[in-house]
Amino acid sequence: MVDAVARVTGTIEYVLNFELPGMLHGRTLRSPHAHARVMEVDGSRARELPGVACVVTREDLDGIEPRFGLFLRDQPVVAIDKVRHVGDPVALVAAESEAIADEALALIEVEYEPLAAVLDVEEALQAGAPLVHEGPRELVSRRPDFVERGPGFAETNVIHLFTQRRGDVSAGFADADVVVEDTYSCPPVQHVSLEPHVAVTRFEAGQLTCWSSSQAPHWLAEQLAQMFRLPVTDVRVIVPTLGGAFGGKVDPTIEPIAAVLAWKARRPVRVCFTREEEFFTGTKHGARVRIKSGFKSDGTLVAHEATCWYDGGAYARETPEKIFRGYVSMGPYRVPNVYVDSWGVYTNKTPSTAFRGFGVPQVAWAHESQMDVAADRLGIDPLELRLKNVYVAGDTFSTGEVLDEEYHYPELLRTVAEKIGWGTEPERDGPRVRAKGIASIIKGMSAFASTSTVKLNADGSLHVLTSSVEMGQGALTSLAQIAAHELGVPVERVRVSTPDTALTPFDQMTAASRTTNSMGRAIRSAVEDVKEQLLQLASEQMEIAAADLELADGFVRPKGAPGHALPIQAVLGRSRLGNLLGSGTYFKPIHLDTETGQGIGAPQWHPCVCGCEVEVDEETGKIDVLHMELGLFLGRAVNPTQCELQVVGAAVFGLGQALFEEIVWDEAGQLLNPNLSDYMIPSFLDVPPRIGVTLLEEPDTTHVHGIGETALPSVAPAIANAVSRAVGARVRDLPLTPDRVLSLLREPKIRDRPGSVPGVVRA
Amino acid sequence: MVDAVARVTGTIEYVLNFELPGMLHGRTLRSPHAHARVMEVDGSRARELPGVACVVTREDLDGIEPRFGLFLRDQPVVAIDKVRHVGDPVALVAAESEAIADEALALIEVEYEPLAAVLDVEEALQAGAPLVHEGPRELVSRRPDFVERGPGFAETNVIHLFTQRRGDVSAGFADADVVVEDTYSCPPVQHVSLEPHVAVTRFEAGQLTCWSSSQAPHWLAEQLAQMFRLPVTDVRVIVPTLGGAFGGKVDPTIEPIAAVLAWKARRPVRVCFTREEEFFTGTKHGARVRIKSGFKSDGTLVAHEATCWYDGGAYARETPEKIFRGYVSMGPYRVPNVYVDSWGVYTNKTPSTAFRGFGVPQVAWAHESQMDVAADRLGIDPLELRLKNVYVAGDTFSTGEVLDEEYHYPELLRTVAEKIGWGTEPERDGPRVRAKGIASIIKGMSAFASTSTVKLNADGSLHVLTSSVEMGQGALTSLAQIAAHELGVPVERVRVSTPDTALTPFDQMTAASRTTNSMGRAIRSAVEDVKEQLLQLASEQMEIAAADLELADGFVRPKGAPGHALPIQAVLGRSRLGNLLGSGTYFKPIHLDTETGQGIGAPQWHPCVCGCEVEVDEETGKIDVLHMELGLFLGRAVNPTQCELQVVGAAVFGLGQALFEEIVWDEAGQLLNPNLSDYMIPSFLDVPPRIGVTLLEEPDTTHVHGIGETALPSVAPAIANAVSRAVGARVRDLPLTPDRVLSLLREPKIRDRPGSVPGVVRA
Repeated sequence: MVDAVARVTGTIEYVLNFELPGMLHGRTLRSPHAHARVMEVDGSRARELPGVACVVTREDLDGIEPRFGLFLRDQPVVAIDKVRHVGDPVALVAAESEAIADEALALIEVEYEPLAAVLDVEEALQAGAPLVHEGPRELVSRRPDFVERGPGFAETNVIHLFTQRRGDVSAGFADADVVVEDTYSCPPVQHVSLEPHVAVTRFEAGQLTCWSSSQAPHWLAEQLAQMFRLPVTDVRVIVPTLGGAFGGKVDPTIEPIAAVLAWKARRPVRVCFTREEEFFTGTKHGARVRIKSGFKSDGTLVAHEATCWYDGGAYARETPEKIFRGYVSMGPYRVPNVYVDSWGVYTNKTPSTAFRGFGVPQVAWAHESQMDVAADRLGIDPLELRLKNVYVAGDTFSTGEVLDEEYHYPELLRTVAEKIGWGTEPERDGPRVRAKGIASIIKGMSAFASTSTVKLNADGSLHVLTSSVEMGQGALTSLAQIAAHELGVPVERVRVSTPDTALTPFDQMTAASRTTNSMGRAIRSAVEDVKEQLLQLASEQMEIAAADLELADGFVRPKGAPGHALPIQAVLGRSRLGNLLGSGTYFKPIHLDTETGQGIGAPQWHPCVCGCEVEVDEETGKIDVLHMELGLFLGRAVNPTQCELQVVGAAVFGLGQALFEEIVWDEAGQLLNPNLSDYMIPSFLDVPPRIGVTLLEEPDTTHVHGIGETALPSVAPAIANAVSRAVGARVRDLPLTPDRVLSLLREPKIRDRPGSVPGVVRA
Repeated sequence: MVDAVARVTGTIEYVLNFELPGMLHGRTLRSPHAHARVMEVDGSRARELPGVACVVTREDLDGIEPRFGLFLRDQPVVAIDKVRHVGDPVALVAAESEAIADEALALIEVEYEPLAAVLDVEEALQAGAPLVHEGPRELVSRRPDFVERGPGFAETNVIHLFTQRRGDVSAGFADADVVVEDTYSCPPVQHVSLEPHVAVTRFEAGQLTCWSSSQAPHWLAEQLAQMFRLPVTDVRVIVPTLGGAFGGKVDPTIEPIAAVLAWKARRPVRVCFTREEEFFTGTKHGARVRIKSGFKSDGTLVAHEATCWYDGGAYARETPEKIFRGYVSMGPYRVPNVYVDSWGVYTNKTPSTAFRGFGVPQVAWAHESQMDVAADRLGIDPLELRLKNVYVAGDTFSTGEVLDEEYHYPELLRTVAEKIGWGTEPERDGPRVRAKGIASIIKGMSAFASTSTVKLNADGSLHVLTSSVEMGQGALTSLAQIAAHELGVPVERVRVSTPDTALTPFDQMTAASRTTNSMGRAIRSAVEDVKEQLLQLASEQMEIAAADLELADGFVRPKGAPGHALPIQAVLGRSRLGNLLGSGTYFKPIHLDTETGQGIGAPQWHPCVCGCEVEVDEETGKIDVLHMELGLFLGRAVNPTQCELQVVGAAVFGLGQALFEEIVWDEAGQLLNPNLSDYMIPSFLDVPPRIGVTLLEEPDTTHVHGIGETALPSVAPAIANAVSRAVGARVRDLPLTPDRVLSLLREPKIRDRPGSVPGVVRA
């Protein structure tokens, strides 16, 4: 990693460590109710506490737009009419220390009128359910389909609906020999970044500067600009390296709080969330997915119907974008007849947000469990059933796109199967049973533009300006490698910026496994731009046509006459231009028809297969994952070591979600485990003793597939399929806690084996 | 000014106020000798002082290149073999506080072997003079002529020589009716920026970051990179607003000191020079200029011969660039026969450096005094003599360039003359005599490239990235105006960056009155680039050819159909590209033949005329400037208020240098007045009660002439010409202190009136 020395010497810059002289500390008073009308907020006693610089309640927001939101402007910086989840911000304090601010919070008096809360997605969609948001909706016109359909959901708990209609699903099911229908669920989980949300904000001379741990600096700048009614040139968002993010830092969360405090206090303000506050701030979407799959008796998938309910929690955040992942609810399998409804739903819980996997793990959990159920019903080996249906080049996606590149699913499936020794029966050793499972998934990448500028310096070194965020995933390294490779110089002569929206060009966000692909392409195009200028300069200096020159190893040379090479710095030195400037943009927009979901679903698709062997202890219900193999087709691996580490990291994330991660609310909407004693994440002891990664490359391709999330969605179903095979019963709800495993053991054993009558299996 | 609110609310960022956590404070041990061999430097006692982090002597420079210099790498960060001027750095200390560092300095033991010092430029050129630098020279190949001629000066005190040969100067003088020859001198003066040199430097994980008050961030980054043998991508120079600079912050001075300390101490280090240290750090070039001018009896200038001796002090710094100003040693007058030798000379004094006026005030002082002497000799009114010879469009410069633009000298001369009531005889009132003087000058702008990138944001606001330095002159404002005008948006929607070499593109320096012109052109070209892209997008969206669209008031509209206009943000929003990126470069290289000085001398020329009325008290020798008028042709004034303020500022600078500014060394090279008690700068009481500024514009031109320095060179000769007229004796050496005026009164009165015999007037 290009920042390896800084990492090991402890000199990486994190916002967590950033200080400004005279900085105040901000804290947030949060709602104890899941749903309540706010009758009165009285900050007067708090304001009188020595050391308090300001208290912000709903009375203090005159002159600004108090709400924000990337798709729906529905989230106020502090509660205005209602609180909508436990932990919803109600008032803010900035004081000389966090301790004083906390003391002041205790002096703020709030009168609530509790309202009935709705906590379940299906209940939330029923007529007469309590409304999380009343009144009209203020849409941010980020996507045409959203603007078209959004207003129809006013006065309901629907955030948004994605629909997909392809072929004739009724005819498909009529034609099927076996129809399998089941419902699968997974709970909200937390990102648990080592570095919590943190922001330092200064509002001086009409300019707002925000040092933030954001994954989406330009989106954040835009949102802050809208709140304070400024051009984005008056807002500056600076993002150093993050201590982890995993999707939890895509949306504005802490920054509007810090900005409003700095605006009111007229002094810089730092806000850093506690671990408990992290659980009130954002979670992965809990989801329920009902799938109905129709197969011919030879295993051919002919019809797919799915209803997905994504639990958006109290605010829309990125839910309108997330529910599109219904388009992969059939998995990486060709199916001519598709009918999908994918709902984003408000409930009175912590707002859901982006989370590593970006909506895919929820549907992958369903379709890969379903494939194994179907395999059993069809009497076909699960590997064979997948091999029969997986995409190959020329197949058509659910979106109608034709797969124009080979994703090598059959090769990945066979390789992973071979590595885990697929094809053996479960083995028992006392109370412990070992069995194997496999799962394959497809993940679409998010669109939006990536842009970059580059600066080729007089000494031949290269500055690359991007707004890609380094959050431990190695973006600075892989982007530097891409630029160095394109220019033909060592990576040590390339430096990639961290984001500063006043200086670095637009990028939507560092998320959705898009950076190496999208920003990589933008950088390649920018380097191509300076290369052309450089060859043109050399052409004039050497009196050789630019087309007859090439760039290699830091030299410009006539093709076929390397002896006449000029170093880059000599060409630039002679030109006396100081530097050459290039820019590049990559944007392959998605466009899906509002009704049919047909069109372009992603600029790039990412394939993964996971296979594993587990050991289930039938006495304790404990699952040990003994061996895990991940196979991914990458196109081209920019940095194989980083790729492998990212795959392992994603797999361990998947493992935690498979085995024990779950945020729990009680029936009143109180969050029961907002801390790292009660909420478990994987430790090194949970990591399988054997993890193998197969990175399949196609050296001639210029495609670079995203790798940050790709492994994650396949892990939980692979583990669950192995567990089901071990205990002979199907688990449908994550996580696979010992309790759930023990209750599985009490269920009737799976008996749908070859020869049984095709039909519907209900949960 | 775009930063007006920040200025009046005290929130401008200055390096002076910048702090890093854990920052050390650096101090410099300086030579007490003007010239001495350094026999031993012992820092051991200083190192033992509690609170001292490191001591740097010549023993501590292993692994780096200890010398720096923009043209000649001749200046060590601490003395290696010799000290070459009083105040030359010998050792450095970084400690927990400045007080501890100062205490440590006192513990460093240095043994010197004093050497004979050379303090006068002409003495320095004589055979057998003490050599300031021995041995071969390490040239920085910044200019071809320098590399060609430089090595020939080894083992002399010549830094560099500029020669100009045009026509046949012997024939010219033979043809002349009147030949005037005289020598004029002006002393070194100090910039006296309110903010002294200050730098905060951090060396972490192989990257050097320097927050500096530099006028030339990219040059500085390049120099630091060479010192530490790093690519410039591993050096980052960040320059916020400066509290004044005036040329004194063009060269690296304090930054190598701070960088070496941070490198040794492995902690951030702040260094801030005291006012006394400022006098050891850089001065304007003291100079002596001998001019011989040949005129026809009707006043036509037919031959010009000049020898200029620019005193470079102990290190070359920018002297090789400065001596080129010999090419305007004839003033703004057409003359067919030219012979100029312009020497840059080492002496054992504070190194000379850039100073507002960039080498021109020295020769302007000479040629404008000479014009009045000649006018008296010719019996022609000084105004008429100038009018007869000043450049008009189509004339040829001393460099052989043909003046392709009208600079309006006759109009400027007549306007200024009219405003000061030219044509009256001196008036006496008791011991006080009033008289008027006039002077006209031409100043060439420095070349090198300016580059800029711009980022047109989705909301239609514009980020402009440049490395131009805001130092109070209003660069941020005028550059924002240029960008806003070019894009057709209000200036409030444009934000111009301050320099950060990791992010903002190359510019040579903010000096030499070049920013509004050079960077302005680069920005216009960058905005043109995004405009084209914007019109292309709009063309696709509106289905109208881009050539039929125009941009006005923030809208794209079909030419002639303003009703169908689309706001910029709508065009960008529909495109979903996030931003549009443009870049621009302006570079009109100078190239002067090494022997003849013929070629291109400047990308732009700046004209000015100064007229004034003075009152001389013959009892006290005190001069009061009662009225001053400055006339400048600007091409186009971007911000007339700022232009006027810059002209007045430059005029007051000129006034100080005319009347009292002078650094004084004793015969041993000890600096006698390095403080603001003994060294005088103008106060508000010295400012003429009446200053008028005439800004002549030509609204149709796209030329923007530099304004930061243009008025300065004309002020001292205008005042001196008035004083000479008042007292009837010629002053040849600046400043016009009361002592000098009183001694003038004792000189024989000027009697060279019409009818006297033509001949040489010697001083």
